[in-house]
Amino acid sequence: MKKIFILKASKAKTSKDFSLNDLPGDGGRMDIVARCVNSAFFLSHDLRKDTEFIVVLEGGPDPPVTLRFVGSKLKYLSPDERCTGGLIKKALEKVTAKETESTPGIFVSKKSFLEVINELEGELVYLHENGEDIQNVDFDSDKICFVLGDHLGLSQDDESLLKTAKRVSISPMVLHADHCIIIVHNVFDRKNL
Amino acid sequence: MKKIFILKASKAKTSKDFSLNDLPGDGGRMDIVARCVNSAFFLSHDLRKDTEFIVVLEGGPDPPVTLRFVGSKLKYLSPDERCTGGLIKKALEKVTAKETESTPGIFVSKKSFLEVINELEGELVYLHENGEDIQNVDFDSDKICFVLGDHLGLSQDDESLLKTAKRVSISPMVLHADHCIIIVHNVFDRKNL
Repeated sequence: MKKIFILKASKAKTSKDFSLNDLPGDGGRMDIVARCVNSAFFLSHDLRKDTEFIVVLEGGPDPPVTLRFVGSKLKYLSPDERCTGGLIKKALEKVTAKETESTPGIFVSKKSFLEVINELEGELVYLHENGEDIQNVDFDSDKICFVLGDHLGLSQDDESLLKTAKRVSISPMVLHADHCIIIVHNVFDRKNL
Repeated sequence: MKKIFILKASKAKTSKDFSLNDLPGDGGRMDIVARCVNSAFFLSHDLRKDTEFIVVLEGGPDPPVTLRFVGSKLKYLSPDERCTGGLIKKALEKVTAKETESTPGIFVSKKSFLEVINELEGELVYLHENGEDIQNVDFDSDKICFVLGDHLGLSQDDESLLKTAKRVSISPMVLHADHCIIIVHNVFDRKNL
């Protein structure tokens, strides 16, 4: 089972000119992005190699920038937010039209959220508090793409791209994106998928 | 349902003299503590008021120090690690024999892990990969105390304090403490407890 998590980070900086001392403010909630990376990949003494995490940064000065983290190739990643923030800064130094690997397992491109969604292969799932309970959902593919909103959620335009996606809920509460990723992993870990 | 999470942080600094720029190294894995605080309390636009988080810091220079975070009273808490690290530094300026409230909802004392465990009221649960699956466990109390180890786990001496605790597992994988907290919350959220 391969899992891909896709986050739209509406305000996250698209240049390296933000301070690691202020990921929430100066980074445009880059702390959320960093925590999602942690949730997507970290096991106690291992990384999840069957997982990808894609984030579309849509803040200033030059949106969009897309970062793709590939579990099977990742190196130099520590669980703390500042470490991930540093790797993101390095990636943002290397933005070109064509997707480039900035450090092992991190790929940077100018793709938009629309392009990312259109290029996805596998079953598309929109994590949403009004969706069907994930415990009752049958997934049809061994590659599932979970779309997450940040603290501002997805716009109507974004949601129109997800018309064909299954709406799936993982909790009766509204949760942070990084917490959602943990719960999704747990559902599949329990099924040994 | 009240939940209390207890973390033993074997190496976490017990003075304010650590850099917010290096919570993992200089702070003695204070990043783990910060992420557990995030997991224990944050909902999308709210804090969990029915939750407490207790961490026993056992690193140098003057262990032990115990910090108790009380969801119903917490203020000035942001989800990022650095913010929590800053509040912990403030707490570590105010360590006295008697428990003191350093900032709203954060209480600091010289209690040891032994004292913390002995003073707990409610049902004691030791989260452990070899425990019974949490989905099949009946809890007897409306106040449950979940004990977690950090990246080094608990010693045999610590475990001997937990002889009477239920051993409960939340995943077939070995997970970081902060990820465990998310999954425990989800189990009870789903039951509306």
